[in-house]
Formats: sequence, C-alpha cells, structure tokens
Amino acid sequence: LTDGKVYLVGAGPGDPGLLTVRAAALLALADTVLYDRLVDPGILKLVRPEASVIYAGKSVGSGDTQDKINAKMVSEAKKGRTVVRLKGGDPFIFGRGGEEAEFLRRNRVDFEMVPGVSSALAGAAYAGIPLTHRDYSSSVLIITGHDAPSKVKRAVDLSSAARAADTLVILMGAATIAETARRLIDGGLERETPVAVIQSATTKRQRTRLFRLVDLAEMSGTGAIEPPSLIVVGAVASLARDLDWFRVDGKTTLEKLRPAKKTAR
Amino acid sequence: LTDGKVYLVGAGPGDPGLLTVRAAALLALADTVLYDRLVDPGILKLVRPEASVIYAGKSVGSGDTQDKINAKMVSEAKKGRTVVRLKGGDPFIFGRGGEEAEFLRRNRVDFEMVPGVSSALAGAAYAGIPLTHRDYSSSVLIITGHDAPSKVKRAVDLSSAARAADTLVILMGAATIAETARRLIDGGLERETPVAVIQSATTKRQRTRLFRLVDLAEMSGTGAIEPPSLIVVGAVASLARDLDWFRVDGKTTLEKLRPAKKTAR
Repeated sequence: LTDGKVYLVGAGPGDPGLLTVRAAALLALADTVLYDRLVDPGILKLVRPEASVIYAGKSVGSGDTQDKINAKMVSEAKKGRTVVRLKGGDPFIFGRGGEEAEFLRRNRVDFEMVPGVSSALAGAAYAGIPLTHRDYSSSVLIITGHDAPSKVKRAVDLSSAARAADTLVILMGAATIAETARRLIDGGLERETPVAVIQSATTKRQRTRLFRLVDLAEMSGTGAIEPPSLIVVGAVASLARDLDWFRVDGKTTLEKLRPAKKTAR
Repeated sequence: LTDGKVYLVGAGPGDPGLLTVRAAALLALADTVLYDRLVDPGILKLVRPEASVIYAGKSVGSGDTQDKINAKMVSEAKKGRTVVRLKGGDPFIFGRGGEEAEFLRRNRVDFEMVPGVSSALAGAAYAGIPLTHRDYSSSVLIITGHDAPSKVKRAVDLSSAARAADTLVILMGAATIAETARRLIDGGLERETPVAVIQSATTKRQRTRLFRLVDLAEMSGTGAIEPPSLIVVGAVASLARDLDWFRVDGKTTLEKLRPAKKTAR
C-alpha cells in the first residue's frame, strides 16, 4: 500500500468560476476532502459522490481544532488516500497553509501546494478596484485585523504601514476596523483617505460601501461592518465609483452613501 | 449589431493548471484574444481556432504600444466581438488592468474583470514559501522594482517598507535588486535577512536560490539575477529549505548554495 498525498488547495474567494483548473481536477479525483467554513457550496459539487467530505472549519485561534485537522490529514494520507485540504482564497495568505505543510513534512506525508485566487486581490477587483494603478498606487500591503499580540513575531506596525504602502488591504478586519482606522490616522494617513468595505466579495451577497477613513475611525461598536469583509484603504478605493462592473441579478453591489451623521465635519 | 464586451483576464503565473475555470471558459468562446509576453503558450491552446489571436506584449514604459492595445480592444468590441485581454498573473497587480478598464469605460465599452492567481503569491508557494505564517509573518508588502520616479504619486518608500512588513515581495526586481537590497538594509532590515529569488516561477524553467540580504546588496552588475524573477524578503524565505515540494522532471528547483565569495564574513 503506497502512502497517499495531501494537496493544500485554495478554493478562491467565493465565485466558483475563480477556482483554478487544477483545483477542480483534484476535487474530482480526491478520496477525502477537508474543507473550511469559507468555501462556497457550489465548489463542493465538484467532489465525486464516493469521496469523504469532511467539514474542518474552525474558529479563530482554536488550536484544538487545528490539531484535529492536522491529525486527520495525516491519518487519511497514511491509508493511501488522495486528500484535498480545501481553504477559501489562497491557503498561504492567512490560511495556515504553511503550518499545515510543516506538519505534513514532519510526519513524512507527501504534499503539494495549489495556490488559489486570493480574496485579498480578487475581492477588490469585483468591487472595481485595481490594487495598483500607475497614478495612484505602486505598493500593496496585505494584513489581517486578527493579528494576535501573543505571537513570537512582532505585531503589525500600523504607523509604518500607513507610510509604507499606497494601498492597504485588510482581511478579517471587520471587528477591529474602528481601532485600525484610528491607528492609521495617528500614523499619518489623511482623515479623508478613501476606504472601500467589500462584504462577501465575489458572491451573490456582495455589498460594497465607500467611506472616508475618519468615518470608520468614528464608528462605535462592532456591528457596523459584518464579516466576512475585505477592507481596502487608499486612493484606489475611489475608483470603485467609476469601475464598478460586477452585477448581482442585474444590480450594482455598490452603495455610495456615507453614514449620514458623519457628513457634517 | 450589439456591442461586444472586453474581459480583462488573468492567466495566472505560468503553470496552465493555475488558470481559473472562468478564464478557460472565456478563452474557449472569445472572438479575439489580445495576449501579453508572459502568458504561457500552453494556455493559448485553449483558444478556439477561428479566433483572432493577437500578440500585445510590450516593453516597460512603452506608452505607444499601450495606446495601440487600448485602441484595438475598443475597435474589436465595437464590432460586436467578445474580446479577452489576457495578461500574466493578475491584471490588477502591476498589470495595468485598472488603466485599461478606465479606458474602456471612457469609450463606453462594457467590460468585466477576471482576476487571476497572482505570480506574487503563487510563485512563492511553488518555492515552498508561505508568505504568511503564524510564527514569522502577519503582513505582506507587494512592490515592483520598476517603480518609475516620474509618476504622479510618491515612489515606494523602502525604509518604511522595511519596518512595515514581515514579508516583502518584489516583482520585476531583477535589474534593481542590489540597490533595493542596500536601501532595505539602510532602512533597518538585518543584513542576514533571508531572501529567495525565484526565476520563471511555476514553470518547467523554475529556479529557486536562497541568499542573505547582504549577499544581494554586494552584487555588482545586473546579470546575476535574470528576469522574470520573483524576490521574497523575510524570515519565511527560509522555509523553502523545509517545504520545497515542486519538482521538474523529478528534480528540486532549489539551489541552496550562496555565492562562494560571500560565505566568509
């Protein structure tokens, strides 16, 4: 009996059309699929009926669940099975794909990395926002709003971030957006800096809203922006007004209104 | 006669398996395909034989060629044709996809954005490098080595970049790598910071080399690193030693040697 193999596969941002050709082929031949919370149900239809399809979604910071996922990948592969570990977006941009690859290597399980279209980039495109632009942006910084302070490495330095990049993309930033916006303004970003908040990007539930950075800094509570949301900070966010192209049932996903109470300065 | 439509499509980093399902479908139905220099020939095989396939590669900064591409997209669409504008990687990460979308909008041509797998992210994964990692990186800054100083916006501030991001990804940086490395060290990055240089990433010509930042800073001339190369700066670059998985004809693409004259410090 030959050992199996684990494919660490990105499912893309939501729209099943943004799955890669290789990911689609692997789903059609997998014996076992371990999938995450943010994987679109339309994508799971590609799995063949005989395969084991196992939900492996987990809450942020749930180490125990991660241990179980790791153990399951190894045990399935050691049975000789072809395993697809399927994650939303790209597994190697805040998807723990690297940590899972290390675990597989330590346990002598063969693996391949199959990158997906990252939600960080494609979500912006579906709102009509190019993250780089000759006139407005030649640098893109991707961070997460869930950066745990207890890590070995330093936390994200938002003051430097404000100076370093023309465009800032924040994943998983809904809950911490007000604090993030305040730190960016303290770091030197203009209060008027355009911000786009794209909820459920590339899906039929997509909703795009444009703000000024100060609007978000003055928000109280955490309910104003719901996850999953992609947040784009920088001049390119304004291009959504002109380049908005994605339609759901023939309608734009762009709400141009700013919060009413913030319009008087 | 109805006006046609232009699809601004990412071809992914090179490996045809990393094309999206939607891109493959659009190539199979396009009347006209305008493709760039970095698009893999294997991908063009998906175009139907009756379609016009036009090479639209251009040198950096060749404004005249860009004008011709823009005019061609518009004239083909106005004839009622379905046009695919195909670019390597993702068209909205240093691909001028945003500028082309603006031109189409100004000329009242309908368009859609079809993001691709970005070379910046996938190229690293094919060298076994996850750009984020719980222990080493929670921020990724993507820049280009070809940042023209004559632009409206400010140039990339490499000193801030060095402080802002755990991982720095440089596209089109081969010719300017020594200067970039020196500026990053001046900006505060450790001379020993690991760097991976991945040439022709995700293709059969892939070649991965690991350096210390100081090795690159001390390089003279521009021939040492050839385009197209992806450069990854930061602790995650070292993970390539452990996680290197991609094989070409059964062989690793990773050369672990550093330049001999630099080993004595």
